[in-house]
Amino acid sequence: MEKSFKAIGQKAQVLPEQVAEQIKELIIVNKWEAGHKLPNEFEMADQLKVGRGTIREAVKILVAQNIVEIQRGRGTFVSDKPGVVDDPLGLSFMSDKHKLALDMCETRLMIEPQIAEIAAKRATAENIQDLERLCKLVEDKIHQNIAHTQEDVDFHEAIAACTGNQVVQQIVPIIQSSIMLFIDITKSGLKHHTIEEHRMLVEAIKEHDTKKANEVMTAHIKQNQRNIELIIGESKKGDKNVEKSGT
Amino acid sequence: MEKSFKAIGQKAQVLPEQVAEQIKELIIVNKWEAGHKLPNEFEMADQLKVGRGTIREAVKILVAQNIVEIQRGRGTFVSDKPGVVDDPLGLSFMSDKHKLALDMCETRLMIEPQIAEIAAKRATAENIQDLERLCKLVEDKIHQNIAHTQEDVDFHEAIAACTGNQVVQQIVPIIQSSIMLFIDITKSGLKHHTIEEHRMLVEAIKEHDTKKANEVMTAHIKQNQRNIELIIGESKKGDKNVEKSGT
Repeated sequence: MEKSFKAIGQKAQVLPEQVAEQIKELIIVNKWEAGHKLPNEFEMADQLKVGRGTIREAVKILVAQNIVEIQRGRGTFVSDKPGVVDDPLGLSFMSDKHKLALDMCETRLMIEPQIAEIAAKRATAENIQDLERLCKLVEDKIHQNIAHTQEDVDFHEAIAACTGNQVVQQIVPIIQSSIMLFIDITKSGLKHHTIEEHRMLVEAIKEHDTKKANEVMTAHIKQNQRNIELIIGESKKGDKNVEKSGT
Repeated sequence: MEKSFKAIGQKAQVLPEQVAEQIKELIIVNKWEAGHKLPNEFEMADQLKVGRGTIREAVKILVAQNIVEIQRGRGTFVSDKPGVVDDPLGLSFMSDKHKLALDMCETRLMIEPQIAEIAAKRATAENIQDLERLCKLVEDKIHQNIAHTQEDVDFHEAIAACTGNQVVQQIVPIIQSSIMLFIDITKSGLKHHTIEEHRMLVEAIKEHDTKKANEVMTAHIKQNQRNIELIIGESKKGDKNVEKSGT
């Protein structure tokens, strides 16, 4: 029933690519989790009946794909979130970053309110503890005036984790991190809103109030969206001023 | 305002990785589109002030990340959908494929009905022509009893394209292709449903009927979901039979 991902987009492969694919299969078949240490070069060369140079080339491919990581002097390990690179949707190759930021907001508005709703339905006591901890972490950073981008992403990822759905857990941080790479919304005047809205989200999920969770998440993302529109507006005005001073 | 994707997850980079990052920046800054030919090894070595061996290593990294592709005897070109690999969510590393397939359905149910709704609002005459062409293509393949997985993905990607939202256009084919790698729903008895439901989707989008588009898409995915549940049920029964015959 299962097929390899390589079934899509078949390309002619050279030897290191084939061996990289075989090592990937080893990881999958043996269910090696994040942090598992791979056999050393000699063992893999022996097992896959290729030279050590080919193993080294194959490992480089797997490193580029974030499937494994090399810890110097310690060995090669399965990556955290194997196979997921920094920009898996290739968004850095899209030239209109303003449009991209707004498209991101629209996408978040499609998916995150429903995630919040399902989260409120399924959240376990442990999930709620996690949420409360991360909510407080963001607040602390805001009060200390420290950047809280990563903690904000973690908070929204933790909401996705309440759903128990593995796919949305992968998608949410990708959308979230990407948007923050283009526009630093944490520098804006939204801090007060963020604290209030995050608290309300945790409350709604804790009370298993699906309707409220959906509504609060919608309001939270729309708040962000308005802010991004504002930042874009400012930036365009800036561009015009630059143009003017140029003429 | 823009930051590099490398801002997240900073790792110590060796020279070929740094050069790969520089070539990636060249592609982004120069807005080289898919299919654009990169300067040759000599030119890049000269421009980036490194040896040709380093350029070759860097290009291998970019190939592994599907940012460029090498066409033998012709040169190195920017890939179609640069930076998006076959399995960008790392789903092949998740061991419970049945759960994964159901999580996929749930994710599709969150996002695709809303995409259909926005598609019905924004579809241009050209979008609708595309949809009609792809709808017919799937039907032809079904009538000829040929696998139509890719065409089905293309059809749903074309609906996402109607929204004009670049992000959902990247996400939809990823979710769609992945699900089909685990479960071959095209082999099921769903062919009649597929034809009927695809036609209704095109109709709703053509009439700019947002409510109908949402409803038809919901029904279409739920139909798929029931079918996947059925296939999983059969497969589990099969597993039990194997167990029984083993005892």
